[in-house]
Formats: sequence, structure tokens, C-alpha cells
Amino acid sequence: MHRDRFFTLSASCPDRVGIIARVASFIAEHQGWILESSYHADAVDGRYFMRIEVKADSLPFHLAEFRDRFHPIAEELRMDWRISDSAVKKRVVILVSKQEHCLYDLMARWQSKELDIEIPCVISNHDNFRGFVEWHGIAFHHVPVTADNKQFAYAEVQRLFEEVKGDTMVLARYMQIIPAEICSANPGRIINIHHSFLPSFVGAKPYHQAYQRGVKLIGATCHYVTADLDQGPIIEQDVIRIDHSDSIEDMVRYGKDIEKAVLARGLRYHLEDRVLTHGNKTIVFR
Amino acid sequence: MHRDRFFTLSASCPDRVGIIARVASFIAEHQGWILESSYHADAVDGRYFMRIEVKADSLPFHLAEFRDRFHPIAEELRMDWRISDSAVKKRVVILVSKQEHCLYDLMARWQSKELDIEIPCVISNHDNFRGFVEWHGIAFHHVPVTADNKQFAYAEVQRLFEEVKGDTMVLARYMQIIPAEICSANPGRIINIHHSFLPSFVGAKPYHQAYQRGVKLIGATCHYVTADLDQGPIIEQDVIRIDHSDSIEDMVRYGKDIEKAVLARGLRYHLEDRVLTHGNKTIVFR
Amino acid sequence: MHRDRFFTLSASCPDRVGIIARVASFIAEHQGWILESSYHADAVDGRYFMRIEVKADSLPFHLAEFRDRFHPIAEELRMDWRISDSAVKKRVVILVSKQEHCLYDLMARWQSKELDIEIPCVISNHDNFRGFVEWHGIAFHHVPVTADNKQFAYAEVQRLFEEVKGDTMVLARYMQIIPAEICSANPGRIINIHHSFLPSFVGAKPYHQAYQRGVKLIGATCHYVTADLDQGPIIEQDVIRIDHSDSIEDMVRYGKDIEKAVLARGLRYHLEDRVLTHGNKTIVFR
Amino acid sequence: MHRDRFFTLSASCPDRVGIIARVASFIAEHQGWILESSYHADAVDGRYFMRIEVKADSLPFHLAEFRDRFHPIAEELRMDWRISDSAVKKRVVILVSKQEHCLYDLMARWQSKELDIEIPCVISNHDNFRGFVEWHGIAFHHVPVTADNKQFAYAEVQRLFEEVKGDTMVLARYMQIIPAEICSANPGRIINIHHSFLPSFVGAKPYHQAYQRGVKLIGATCHYVTADLDQGPIIEQDVIRIDHSDSIEDMVRYGKDIEKAVLARGLRYHLEDRVLTHGNKTIVFR
Repeated sequence: MHRDRFFTLSASCPDRVGIIARVASFIAEHQGWILESSYHADAVDGRYFMRIEVKADSLPFHLAEFRDRFHPIAEELRMDWRISDSAVKKRVVILVSKQEHCLYDLMARWQSKELDIEIPCVISNHDNFRGFVEWHGIAFHHVPVTADNKQFAYAEVQRLFEEVKGDTMVLARYMQIIPAEICSANPGRIINIHHSFLPSFVGAKPYHQAYQRGVKLIGATCHYVTADLDQGPIIEQDVIRIDHSDSIEDMVRYGKDIEKAVLARGLRYHLEDRVLTHGNKTIVFR
Repeated sequence: MHRDRFFTLSASCPDRVGIIARVASFIAEHQGWILESSYHADAVDGRYFMRIEVKADSLPFHLAEFRDRFHPIAEELRMDWRISDSAVKKRVVILVSKQEHCLYDLMARWQSKELDIEIPCVISNHDNFRGFVEWHGIAFHHVPVTADNKQFAYAEVQRLFEEVKGDTMVLARYMQIIPAEICSANPGRIINIHHSFLPSFVGAKPYHQAYQRGVKLIGATCHYVTADLDQGPIIEQDVIRIDHSDSIEDMVRYGKDIEKAVLARGLRYHLEDRVLTHGNKTIVFR
Repeated sequence: MHRDRFFTLSASCPDRVGIIARVASFIAEHQGWILESSYHADAVDGRYFMRIEVKADSLPFHLAEFRDRFHPIAEELRMDWRISDSAVKKRVVILVSKQEHCLYDLMARWQSKELDIEIPCVISNHDNFRGFVEWHGIAFHHVPVTADNKQFAYAEVQRLFEEVKGDTMVLARYMQIIPAEICSANPGRIINIHHSFLPSFVGAKPYHQAYQRGVKLIGATCHYVTADLDQGPIIEQDVIRIDHSDSIEDMVRYGKDIEKAVLARGLRYHLEDRVLTHGNKTIVFR
Repeated sequence: MHRDRFFTLSASCPDRVGIIARVASFIAEHQGWILESSYHADAVDGRYFMRIEVKADSLPFHLAEFRDRFHPIAEELRMDWRISDSAVKKRVVILVSKQEHCLYDLMARWQSKELDIEIPCVISNHDNFRGFVEWHGIAFHHVPVTADNKQFAYAEVQRLFEEVKGDTMVLARYMQIIPAEICSANPGRIINIHHSFLPSFVGAKPYHQAYQRGVKLIGATCHYVTADLDQGPIIEQDVIRIDHSDSIEDMVRYGKDIEKAVLARGLRYHLEDRVLTHGNKTIVFR
């Protein structure tokens, strides 16, 4: 993150002749210096996807005017689009339960500015990590979730998320099923790490399922949360080799290393606006 | 394959104190030189597994007498066991359809003696590879399979397998569902390569399924064939990374490289008596 | 390869504002439909790289006229560039010695049209594979190489390569050091597979070197051949895990699987004009 | 670590007939229940290696008596051997500099008891992590290292290590060259994580070296520290894929994920007595 300030334009539109020419010419007309750009045509569905980073100080205007001036082009191309500013840090709210590995991993990346984000607060259904989180100067909210109080608890989670103006909610092994109304209130903004290589082993206790089936690799999946459990668009996945000598406890331990790595990669892609969704799939411009 | 001749003892039995001592002492009493040995205790089921390679010329007897003398120990320990001789080549019958990658790969390994086996014949439901197989000096049998002749066709496959005294039947992307009676006639002797990372994407067109789900890795699984489609004990698996730019055709192409590598590894483990089955799982002493 | 015919433009030039706009506008003006496009800015050296696939029948002209019309733009941008036609198959000459794995692997890919190329001939310093190659309907030339005849032998290799109008020479474990004059006569056209993860274990017997050092992974490297042994631009690399129980023979065996996979991937990138060199490094637009 | 208490016997000796029989019979005579056992014969050097876990309460005696009774067998077999007790936690001293990733990672594993060790203190040449370490209830020592005070500084490190009765010293990206006298005072007890795939890129700034060479994978190596810089026995290695778009800063970031994973795995193997050294190589009984 020692790079100059830049704007990131992410967009998709129906495919046709001249899309890149139209967008790149607009940028060039204003002396915009393109740092990085990626394009993808989905030939099956006839849809075009792009992500362009433009050096901020090469342009004679800032985001508001960029938006105004680009608007007619986007209309003409029937684009879904957004633009972000690398100088505005994303606000990420982390939800955890009692497992530490993803939380420590994210905090180390935040602490070293590898993840150059704001963490306005951490929310947990347990009080275990209060000290650790607060020691880092970050607010901690204990919101217990019981069979009886779910509606109230998730209303509180959503209230806290809105209060701190969160951009992204990360379920860092939160281990609770998020109610449909929370999912639909935050589309494309809730990221989960599931402890299996989806679509294998959906739902509870995937390592137990993997042990029973006798697979030779186990994995983890980072995905957007939708109302369908473990069915949302997949952002990133990875696996690790196991063998017959590994118990379920060993698999849980190996799994943690994959979970935290996959979550960190998936979250980074998301925060850098590298992920565009297309139905239930993702385009990830790495 | 520059190693001396050796015998391979593979066994499993209920776990108890003194199993290794009993078996290793028997071998030592006869001056048997152990080249390699592996042990595994399944703590959940209380069962013990082992594989021991003994240098043939270190012993004062050969397999028949080994079997006689070891028999009381095996009885006492309530063992399932077998012993093989590295000087006796395994007889592997390959079944193919119209895809070439696994066949070429196995033939290259056979040709260079990396796989030090006999291939008494190749059987196919198409005639495409006759020339290629026969050029290598191997018999080729075209056994067409249609909706109407399945019973007859598989009886012929089984007859050919028995006629050539086959040890192992390899489905090298054979693309046909093997009838239950063939499976049960050859338990632990039919090896398949399935073109997905099981248990994801069972059945037909797994790459199409993977494309629809938007996974970020695709894989292949080498397993023993049982009457339950794609449910047999898994011997080996592996995966390869794909991304949004890969079409189904690209996935098929990437998949071939994983399929042939996974099949070759799984087959090798099997032929070297490194695979012991335990219910629907495998112990693989690599 | 079920895609429509397309042209592939590969280019690099000094970085500045408006490169993409200039090139993409040229294509759009002629109704060129972009199937795939990739761009890379080397910020350290201030150089820009691109690769664009344009659907052939979307343009009103063919390669010759494309070249004429694009020429002024390329001049203005001070570009190094080339353009190729997917309908014109690349001509690949394979050089082998006595190891079979890369040859069988390439032949299987050619036979199934996964590699949609012409193989005008195979050249070898041994006669072993004559039958195998000729059975596939491909010419085989035995050009022995001895301590005394090197100059003559390589002159003959070069003559054969030119005679068949070869585009690319593939050293498929050819195991001979190519003289400097052959390297400089064919810049960026000779591809080698080295049996180590370069820069580790340059030169002869890399698996022996790896065994001595006790590494836990071994690898292979596909690279362009230059006059500096094993120092040319790297196109692709991969590794496989080994452990203390693996002998040098085991490592050779494992290594073969990595070698053939890495060579096939690297060769494919090269043939699809996905590789641009930049000094001693490569940009690979996968 | 929910397993019962056990003793771990690690040993090596000249290879001969009857080693396993001798050792396993000794254990069986005393009703010792073997939980896990691994054996390796180095055929080149004629040396035998083993590691055996015995359930503590299956034996009628504890470590001292085990040692006495086993001594004559070890003498007879001319063994190098040691035995450890899972109930006695290893004492690990961590040395860090200014990078956080390995420290956070190890602390998370310690905090969750995944690494069931004592950390008597953390030593650093900078004061940055004092607060983080002390918050976990662990002593922190700031021992500055300058060009002038090296001898004094390392004497202090050694004094602290001995004072807390450390078993293992972990260089968690400590970034200082350990003097030869410290290396020889603690043979097989100092573990380093080097940020390259050794033997590639020995010494300083390996990611810069990797960037210059244009490799397609970068790696990390966990090894025992000896007086020869980056030449000690390798315990574990791994790699991650990069491409032309990755700057040195990106490589450093990717590298951190590999470094912490490789260090954690290597350290775990060491602490569980799974690593036996043999000259400059390791046997790792995973």
C-alpha cells in the first residue's frame, strides 16, 4: 500500500463492440493514468465485466465529478458500476465466536497495515476476546445469541453495523446462521468462511463429514452470505492434504490454517473491489 | 525399480498390546531384513493396520512356507492378511472409451517400466485406440456397450478379465457405469478415476456442475468401484485452480491433467499393496 | 478449441496515458469484437504490455490489412508487436533423447487436438522412439550427437527446423546443451523443460543435488533457452512434495509428472502468444 | 491434545536384522500400548530411524525406569536415542524483530493450546511488541543488537535462554545472523524461518532476488540453525504462486502467509519429536 492514491472503477454491462474503447477513451481524454485494468467477457451470458485503477492525481477532478461525467457513458452501455477511492478506508466489522485463529490473523494484518482498513468494532456472541480486541484499541460488543433472543440479537448486530457505518461484515468463524433478513439487508456485504471445500459438506460439522467419507484433502471456502445456507457466490477456496492417520481433531487443526488464509485472501479481493458477482458466481480480478 | 526382490505383507487386526513385537519377532527369527514398514492404529474403531517389506533373499524360505509359518500368528491375532512377491508382476487390464489422456499416460509409464506390470489386454467400447494399443504389442478387445446388450457386454468383459488372469481392472475414463454384479465379483480390484473432487459433483458431467456452482478449484478422485456409484473407498485425490475466465472446455482440459496424475498415483499405491480398506475408507501407506 | 477464428495482438511499449484507448478505439472503429484482453504495466521500468484477441469475422479485413492500418499507431506508441491468426497452426519441432514421459504427453495432447498444432517432425539423438513417432504419422529424424560431431549435428538440427518452417523448438528432456549459435539463431523460439525449481540446482543431475541438500519439495521449470545455461526467461514452474523416504529414483519418478505438466502448460502459453518477454523475465497473460 | 499421556521414543542406529523386534518386544513385555510408530531405513548410509509413542499408563514405570531398562538394548544396538513425556511441556523462547506475522500466529496457536507449550519469554531487538506480548502474560525482553554490542547482546540472549530453561529457540523472522558460538551451544535447538525456497536465494532480501530472477513461485524454509548461514538441515518448506503482476511488496505479503504456515508446521514437528537429523538432512515422521 505504498502506491499513490487511485480510484477503482468496477463495472459490468451487456457485451458489445467498443466497450473498452468507450471507457478507456473517457479516461484518456482527462489524462487519466491507468495503473491496472482487467476485463472479462462471459461468452455464455453475453455480459462484460471490468475493473480499472486510475491514478487519482492524474485526473483533473475527484470522485463526485468523475461520477457525473461518467454517468452518460454508463447509461449508454447499460452498466452496473461503482467507483471507490483508495484514500477512503473500508470499514470492516468482524463477528467472532470462540475460535481465535481468524481473529488473530485479521488483527495481525490490520496491525501491520497489510489490511489498510478501519475496524470500528468486533461483535461476538461470547465475551472471550474482549481483552484481546480492546487491547488493540478496538471496541468490542458482546451480543449473546440464544434460542429465544435471535430476532433481538440480530437486530442489535445490524444496529451496531449501521451505527459504525460498516461497509463489510466478516463472519470470522462466527458459527451462527445469519437470518434471511440480515442477509437481504446487506447484499454482497457479508463474507463468511466455511470450513469445507463447498459444495462438499454443507452445514454443520464438515470435518466430521469429511472424516466419515475418507477424503484425502480438506478445504475451506470464502463466500458471500445469502439466505441459502452455504450457497452464496464463492470468492476463494483452497485445500490441504490429509491422510488416514489424521483424526478429526487433526483435521480441525489443519483446517484452521486453510480457513484463515482463504478468508484473508477473499476479504482482500473484496475490499480492493476485485470481486464482481454474476448470478451466483463471482468474477475475481486478482 | 533397482531394488532387490522383496515380499510385502499387508495386514489388519483388532488392536492390542504386542502386535508389532509378534510380527517383527517372527521376521527377525528367520533373519528377515525389513526394508520398509508402516503401521497405523485406528483409535476410533480399535483396529490395527500394517505393511511390511522384507528382502526376499534374507529369508530361508519363499512365499508358500512364509504363509504356512505365519498362519498361526495371524490366527492368534485374528488378522486379515495377504503377502505378495515383487518378482511376480501384477496383471492390469485397462478399460477405456474415447478419451486418450489416461491411456497414453499409463502406456508411457508401462513402456518405461515405471509401472512394472503386465498389461495382458486393453478393452474398449470403441475401436479408436486399437492401433495405438496393438502397436505397443498389447491385445485390444472392442466390446461395444449399448442400451440393449449391457448384460452380455459386461459378461464378456468379466470373461476376458478372468481369461487373462487379471489382478486389477482400471477404468481409465471408461465413462460407463459398471453393473453391480461385476463390482461384487471383483471387490477391491476395480479402480476408477472420477473427474471431480468427491463427494462434490457425483455422477454425470461434473465439470458442468462445477461451472454452474462457480467453484475456484476442480479435482479428480481415484477410488475403488463398488455398487454405489462414485461412493467407493477413496484412494487418492487432487485439485487444480481455475478462475472465472475458464470455460467448461478449459475445465475439461485442466481436469485431464489432474485425472491422469491422480489415477497413476492411486494405481501405483494399489499395485504396491499400499492400500488397505477399512469399511468405506482407505489406509494408504505411502 | 471450439471457438471462432480470432487474431491475437501482442504488444509492448513505453507506458503513457491513452495506450488502451488508442488501441481499443482502433479495433472498435472497425467493429472488432474483443474476445479476451489483458494488460500489464511494469511500474518499475515504465513499460506497458498487452494481449488482445479479436474475433476474425467481426473485422472487415484480414491480417495483412490489419498490419498496414495498425502500423502508424504502433509507430506512434513505439511498440514492439506481433499479430497471429488462430487459423494458422503453429509448427512445433520436438527434440527428445531417451526419456519418454514428455514425448508421450505431448503426443497425446496433439492426437486429441488439445494442442492444435502441426508437428512436422521429431528429432532425437537416439533412435528409440522412431516407431512410436512414425506410427502417429510424424517424421522422425535420428541425429546422433557425439563429442566430436556437435557442430555438424546442430547444423543439421537447425537445417531440419528451417526446412520444415518450424515456429518453435521444444526440448522435451533432450538432455543436451544447445550451442550458443543455435540459441541466438532462434531467439524466443526454443523452449526447454529443466528438471529443477530454478534457480536451485542448475546444470546436471538436479535430483541428485536435491537429494543431497535434503529439500522437501522438488520442481521443474519451463523456460526459453538462451546462451546462458538454465538462465533464460522462466515461463512456468511447479513443485511436488517429497520426504525422507524418497530415494533419488523416487524423485526422478515424481519429477517426471511435474516436468510434463509444466512443459505442457508453458508450451501452451507460448503457442497462444500469452508470453511476452521483458529482459530476462516473462509476462504470462494466462 | 485430548489424547492420553504418552512417552515418545526417538532413536537411530546402524541398520541390521531385528531392530524393530528388539524394541517392540521390550515395550510389549511391559504391556506398553503403542499409539503410533514410524520407521525409516536409509539404504544409502545403512542407518535406521524410528519414533514410537507409548501410552504412559500402559507401562508399569515412568521415564527414569524406562531409561534404565532400555539402556542395555540401546547399547547393544548402538543407538542415539531420547525419550520424552507428553505431560512435560516444552519451553519455547521466541525471538522477533519488527515483523508481526509469525509472532501473532504463534501466539494464537499457544493461546488456543493448539501448541501446548510454555513460552517463558519473548526476546526482541526492538521494543515494539512489548505490550502485545505482556498482555498475554508472557515476559518480554528488549535486547538491542548493534554493530558494536553483538557479543554482549548474544551472550544476554543465551543467558536468558538458559535462565528460563528453554528447550527450543525460535527465530520468528528475527532478521539477525546468529553467531557461530550460539549455534554450537544449542545444536538442534534453534529453528529459523527463511523467506525463500532454499537453496534458492540464500542470504539477504530473497524476495528482491526472486523478483529479479522472475520466478513463478516463491517459498519459505524452516530449518535448524547452524554456523553456516541458511545451510542447516531443512525441516519443512512450501511455496505459493505469483505472477508478473506482483511487485516485491506483493511478494513480501504473499510470503508472510507461507512463512508463518511453514514455521508453525516445522516447529510442531520439532516439538513432537518427529524430526531426527542425519548429517545435514532430516527425517520427519509426520
